[in-house]
Amino acid sequence: MNFTINKRYFYEKLSVVSRAISVFSPLPAFSGVKIDVSATQIVLTGSDSDISIRSTILPDEDNQLTINDIGSIVIEAKYILEIVRKIEGDVIEIEILDDTLTRISGTNAQFKINGMKSTDYPAIDFSQPRESFQISSEVLKEIITQTSFATSDRETRPVLTGVNFSCQDHQLQCVATDSYRLAKKLVPIDATVSFNITIPSKSLQEVLKSIGEEENVTLYVDHKKAQFLIDHTIIQTRLIDGAYPETSRLIPADFSYELRIDSRELLNAIDRASFIKNDGVYIIKFSLDGSECILSSSSAEVGSSMEVLSNAEFKGDHLNVSCNGRYVFEALKALKPGEIVFHLCGEMKPFTIHTDGDDSVLMLVVPLRTYA
Amino acid sequence: MNFTINKRYFYEKLSVVSRAISVFSPLPAFSGVKIDVSATQIVLTGSDSDISIRSTILPDEDNQLTINDIGSIVIEAKYILEIVRKIEGDVIEIEILDDTLTRISGTNAQFKINGMKSTDYPAIDFSQPRESFQISSEVLKEIITQTSFATSDRETRPVLTGVNFSCQDHQLQCVATDSYRLAKKLVPIDATVSFNITIPSKSLQEVLKSIGEEENVTLYVDHKKAQFLIDHTIIQTRLIDGAYPETSRLIPADFSYELRIDSRELLNAIDRASFIKNDGVYIIKFSLDGSECILSSSSAEVGSSMEVLSNAEFKGDHLNVSCNGRYVFEALKALKPGEIVFHLCGEMKPFTIHTDGDDSVLMLVVPLRTYA
Repeated sequence: MNFTINKRYFYEKLSVVSRAISVFSPLPAFSGVKIDVSATQIVLTGSDSDISIRSTILPDEDNQLTINDIGSIVIEAKYILEIVRKIEGDVIEIEILDDTLTRISGTNAQFKINGMKSTDYPAIDFSQPRESFQISSEVLKEIITQTSFATSDRETRPVLTGVNFSCQDHQLQCVATDSYRLAKKLVPIDATVSFNITIPSKSLQEVLKSIGEEENVTLYVDHKKAQFLIDHTIIQTRLIDGAYPETSRLIPADFSYELRIDSRELLNAIDRASFIKNDGVYIIKFSLDGSECILSSSSAEVGSSMEVLSNAEFKGDHLNVSCNGRYVFEALKALKPGEIVFHLCGEMKPFTIHTDGDDSVLMLVVPLRTYA
Repeated sequence: MNFTINKRYFYEKLSVVSRAISVFSPLPAFSGVKIDVSATQIVLTGSDSDISIRSTILPDEDNQLTINDIGSIVIEAKYILEIVRKIEGDVIEIEILDDTLTRISGTNAQFKINGMKSTDYPAIDFSQPRESFQISSEVLKEIITQTSFATSDRETRPVLTGVNFSCQDHQLQCVATDSYRLAKKLVPIDATVSFNITIPSKSLQEVLKSIGEEENVTLYVDHKKAQFLIDHTIIQTRLIDGAYPETSRLIPADFSYELRIDSRELLNAIDRASFIKNDGVYIIKFSLDGSECILSSSSAEVGSSMEVLSNAEFKGDHLNVSCNGRYVFEALKALKPGEIVFHLCGEMKPFTIHTDGDDSVLMLVVPLRTYA
């Protein structure tokens, strides 16, 4: 194996596939990047078995790739990233010297690194699932940021640690819930596809980091795995088994109270009170009366806070609602900034939050009972 | 107690005294900021008993301080910092409502925080030591950054965890060593003072963070404590007991070899090789021959590196020297950038490093024996 390549380009591609690599992997080979050099291309692979990223480099002007000899090797991700990032030279050379000893050479410096045999690297099936559709990278980013925060971080109900993607009649519905709050995003889809899968939130975070300025991402799905094709990079993730709960009946169709407020004002007010915690949770209380909206919180240990939200508009009778402040905070952060609308049904009834004029995203929060 | 004050100004002063506060303090009162309000001024105090910071606020246009009622309270540092940072309003009001319940009010929000009685706060003796001299804040910053990195982080020889300040004949000498490397800084002093004290490195780091754009800092010292007076803020630290070792005989008077190199080039080269570690230490080897300088490192586990330092100039015969790369790296970082001069005496003899043309700072590193 011997090739020369533009240093900056190679570093970028190494960074992308390295995202799949976990330092906690029990399999030593998975701590490395697999480099496969054939006569016409280089394929880089990184994986932790749950998520796998494969990037193909074809010679072009940009990457200045010249392949002198084929071969393959696995090199510890942290070492190769460190070397390629810091070595001097526009074009660098990578060469297997002897069995697994690999030389990386720049202008004045050269490194010889002990690699691992590529035959010790587990075989990863990158075959393409049948169902596929295109989505703009901007919309995919929105889907991930507006839903995945609401997934559960507990393994007691594994299916809730993922975002459910279901598609029929040209509509993609993405739902995340930890059973105390929910986020739902609707997106129209051009293709005629039908599926119902749950993608681990962790994998979606990696996809999010890998989406650049590309126009479109192609998604390939079946009941076993999902693939995101971005340029010449495939991000492949396992799915979470098990039926996702039916969430549509949780969302109230009607409401008795409406609160309108600027998202920035409410975010700041919640943030100010967020240190007043009870057992690690900060509970906020909306006291709504006439047109007045007061946000308060209290803790026997720390103290209390009280703030008048002067620009809020409330329609309805008198109402007090308490809830986990973090849930409202994260929901507001995920929504587009601007005027936010709360629809409420009562003191202990789940309420919804959305940005005025945008019905494609809906957040739902379940209130808490307080005795303050 | 009741006063109003400019929010931004108050936050700045709270931040300064909070630096002394350690979250690990066994005494609950030490997790708080003590606020003493008299008829004419406010005094803020933070301490972890090793280091204590006291800041005095006198009413002026800048701070908009108005004292309405005297009194004192101790408030958990993290809470008051959080509130004052985030509350809205140019001027805020702080008032004791009832015993220790303290109200902090801004434009629309108010917080009621459970404080602690100031009588539960340990008495701290801020009396002024007799010996004193002035030093420019720039020079004091240099002293700290150019020496304290070389102190020991092990408690086996406590005196080595501090920087030794000794002064006589109008010359201040500051020395730090962990017995494997040493940093020495000489500074002329105007005042006629004579002392030999060792200040904990940790305290000096706090002083460093507290030095702003002030022209001068006044140091007060005796055999018990040192005080840094910066504006209206006193930073007081305990000293480390015990005789500081005599270090002058460690520094070779003569040398047989000289290496000159640009500090940036060498820093980058060492940085590139720094991941090649043996038991957590990265050892670098200088191979000097004729005018050539090669930097190399190797580890049985990771691999090896080799780099030609093309702009280095070497005077002397053939010489190989190995040492802990981190020691040279940190020494170079602490020196002014530019041409760096190494004076060497032999393979296993300590060598010195200084910036060409600046004799006020000297670094010393002890080589390592390697079997590579």
